[in-house]
Formats: sequence, structure tokens, C-alpha cells
Amino acid sequence: MVTGVNIRGTTKLIGIIGDPIVQAKSPAAVNPLFAARGADIVSVPLHVPAKDLSTIWAGLKAMPNLVGFGITLPHKQTAISLCDSLDPVAARVGAVNFVRRERDGTFRGYQFDGKGFVRGLQSRGIVIEGRPALIIGAGGASVAIAFALVEAGAKSITVSNRTFDKADALAETVNADFGRKVAKAGKAKPEAGQLVVNATSLGLQDTDALPLDPDLLQPGMTFAEVIAQPETTRLLALAAKKGVATHSGMHMITGQADLTVDHICELWA
Amino acid sequence: MVTGVNIRGTTKLIGIIGDPIVQAKSPAAVNPLFAARGADIVSVPLHVPAKDLSTIWAGLKAMPNLVGFGITLPHKQTAISLCDSLDPVAARVGAVNFVRRERDGTFRGYQFDGKGFVRGLQSRGIVIEGRPALIIGAGGASVAIAFALVEAGAKSITVSNRTFDKADALAETVNADFGRKVAKAGKAKPEAGQLVVNATSLGLQDTDALPLDPDLLQPGMTFAEVIAQPETTRLLALAAKKGVATHSGMHMITGQADLTVDHICELWA
Repeated sequence: MVTGVNIRGTTKLIGIIGDPIVQAKSPAAVNPLFAARGADIVSVPLHVPAKDLSTIWAGLKAMPNLVGFGITLPHKQTAISLCDSLDPVAARVGAVNFVRRERDGTFRGYQFDGKGFVRGLQSRGIVIEGRPALIIGAGGASVAIAFALVEAGAKSITVSNRTFDKADALAETVNADFGRKVAKAGKAKPEAGQLVVNATSLGLQDTDALPLDPDLLQPGMTFAEVIAQPETTRLLALAAKKGVATHSGMHMITGQADLTVDHICELWA
Repeated sequence: MVTGVNIRGTTKLIGIIGDPIVQAKSPAAVNPLFAARGADIVSVPLHVPAKDLSTIWAGLKAMPNLVGFGITLPHKQTAISLCDSLDPVAARVGAVNFVRRERDGTFRGYQFDGKGFVRGLQSRGIVIEGRPALIIGAGGASVAIAFALVEAGAKSITVSNRTFDKADALAETVNADFGRKVAKAGKAKPEAGQLVVNATSLGLQDTDALPLDPDLLQPGMTFAEVIAQPETTRLLALAAKKGVATHSGMHMITGQADLTVDHICELWA
């Protein structure tokens, strides 16, 4: 992973836009993947202040060798209105975290949080198909993950949230979209064999309240985090100590990197 | 020179803008130089169609981690009016081939053709100071090189051109600028010990007419090309065969790469 990239006149670019941008991990994550495939494509950080998004967007759009870009804070929602088209998942979630230049030159917005999370689980051999899942939280990450887990064959989804109505709304959206009653709102009480996902921000700080009572986690369940930093949250450590299978939020990052590279190489490698 | 670069969120960018851009050599030339200095800066190709220059320029200007860019065809002249300020050499030549983001965020235009040519001669130990020079051609490259050679201490400059008036105008501009009669228009007849520069495009093709009668070149002179591709022009090969010291246009490219890296690192490394 320390191999650098060689940049030539023929090299195509993808960016990652955000403000600040110094914390962006995606160039270091995806460049070795492009190199391993022999793709003449490189990812670079683009510092994009919020007030300048539309000016910079127009500039990026006009450069044919800029074939896509990831989107981080504070642009994930505002980018929606700038995209020429939206992938259905991005429209559902109301946020875009990747834009690809399509064959016709237009910019299409995508949302890879959910698919990246699923890709991460799959990369670690964690079973999704036929399995019930409990998602803690009902924000943007929960929406993306709920849809992606159902698409990947999860048996059922329970959404637990401090505000019950928000969890209920998420479940109803999923049910409406898939045309069957696969999701419901419920309590943060894991059941035997469940895939349990913390999709809240609780755990970013060691002093945060736990999103879930750790005594309820038992062997046979899998406890997965969306939080990648710290790589091991307090609850993840407690779960592992109890013999529960655990899955760090880091795998969602690498899953998204894989997806990004697939998605760009499909058109531009 | 095959070592690649590692790109992180903290990495600053320079570009090279042009249309087409696939032929651009500068990313491959400057990236190893940045890496050798431990500078977290990387050069990438930016494909900029002529009609989109001002849109893309505005986008580049708004991205604080984009700290400069080289300029190639067809933007060298049109970029003049977009720069916030111009280096005197760029103003004289009427063309910009590098733009740097200054400390205050403005974009200043520079012209490194002449200084890059001089840097290339110096890197090969070729004496300029106190030496008479003959420049064949009176276009943009000739203007830049004439000024740079006088600045580097050349004793005199003779400019030879098919259209005498254009050579005369160049010489008069140089004389006016330096406040002394250092340049004159003249014939393409090299004199003993002279530094002879082909600054025309004759030699890009093997079938081109020679810019100079090769029988006039003698040992003790140096014959230098501006043409970098082919690395050895027909006249350069003929000169070498006669025992004349020769200097490929390649060294102007590497000279400009050195200058670019110096110039960017001075503010941004």
C-alpha cells in the first residue's frame, strides 16, 4: 500500500471535494487499487469551500479528464441540486457521496454508504442473506444501510431510534420501496443471531453514551460499527470481550473504496 | 525517476492545462522533483478546452489547495487577460506558461521559456556570460530567450529572421528594456565562439528545411535547440558530426521543470 502512482498526460483524475479536505482518506485508499488494476487514473484532494461549490462544480464539469469525485462535508446535501441526474439510492437518502461523469459527459450523483457497508461485511465473510438485522439510529447512514441490507437479502430490518416516529418513517419508506413488509420500528433489543449495526455517531468519542446496552449482545450475533475512527469503539471492544463477532467501521471505508474503483473503472479505465 | 507519488488529503496540487493534454510531459518531469524534496505537492494533467478556459479558471481559483499550473496550447496567450498580475517577462513576451497562486490567493502569470532555456544551458556547464549569441527566429520563444540570455550576461544578441523587421523589432525591444545596445538584427551567419540557438520550429519534422547552413557551424561554437522532440534534430546531428558542441531542446524542458518546482516550493512546500 505504500507504492506511489505515476502521473502522465494521459492520466484521468477523480477528486474528493470537501472543506476541510486535509483529513480525506480516499486518495490514499483508492490510488493503490487503481494502480493494482493497471488503471491510468488517480485520486486527488480538492479543497472546495462551501460558498464556492457551484463555481468549482462548473469548472470540474468542463474538464473532460476529470471523471468523478467523492463528496464529503459540507457538500453531501447541497450537491444534490447540482447533479444532472441521481441514482435512486441517492435520491432516497437525500445525500450524494460520489459523482461520476457518465458516457454522455453528465454528472450523476450516487450514494455508496449503504453499498460500501454491505461490501465491507461481504469482504469479511459476514452473512447477510436470510438474516434479521437491527439498525440503531435513523439518520442518513441508517437509511442507506437499511436499503442496502434489504437489497443484499436480509430477512428483516428493525430500526431503533430515540425518536420512534423517525424510525417508523424509515421502515415505512423501505417497505413501500420494496413492496413488502420487511422493515419495522422497534426497540434496541438485539435478538439471537441478529446482525446489529450502530449507525449513530455515539462512539466517536470515548466519553459518549453507549448506543446499546452491551449486556444484550450475545455470541451468535454480529455487532457492526459505522464509525471508523476510532477503529475500535468502546462498544465494539465490549462486544468482542463477550465473544460477539465484531466488525469495525473501517471495513465500510475500504468497501466504499472498492466500490468507487469498480464504478469508475467500469466506464473510464 | 520511476518512483511514484503518494497522495493524501494534505497534498497540494499543481496542474498543467491544455487541449489536448495527453502529450503533457510536465507531471512526469516535476513529480519526482517534488518527491525528492519531500514536498507534499503533486502535478496532474487538466484537460481544458479553449471555450471553457474562463469557467475552469474560476473553478481552479476557488480551490485553495490548487497552488499553480503550467499552461500549454492553446491557452498561452488567452491566459494573459485572466491573470490577476503578470511577471514582467510574461508581459514582454505576451504569453504565460505558468501561473502561481501567490500568498494573497491571486493568480500571477509567468513565462519560464527563456529562464528554463538558460537553466538548461547552465545545467550542462555551457558558458553564457560574456559570450555573443545568435538566435534564429523572432517568435515568442526567441523573445523569451533573448531577454533571458541578456539577463544571464550574454555579451551580445544577434536575431536572425526571414522577416528582417520582426528581428529588428525584437532587438530594439531588448535594447530599450536593458537601456543599452546589446541586441541587433542580422544574418544567420554564426561567428567564432558564438552560442547559436535555433528558436524556430524548423526541425520538428525531419523533412523540414534547415534553419541554418550547417557548413557555417564550426568547433568552438555551441549549437542549441529549442525543439525537444525529436531529441536530436537533423541540424543538431549535423552539428555534432562537425565537432560543434550541441545542446538538445530536452534540457530546456528539464530546466523549466526545475524552475517550476523552485517557484512553487518557495511559497507552498
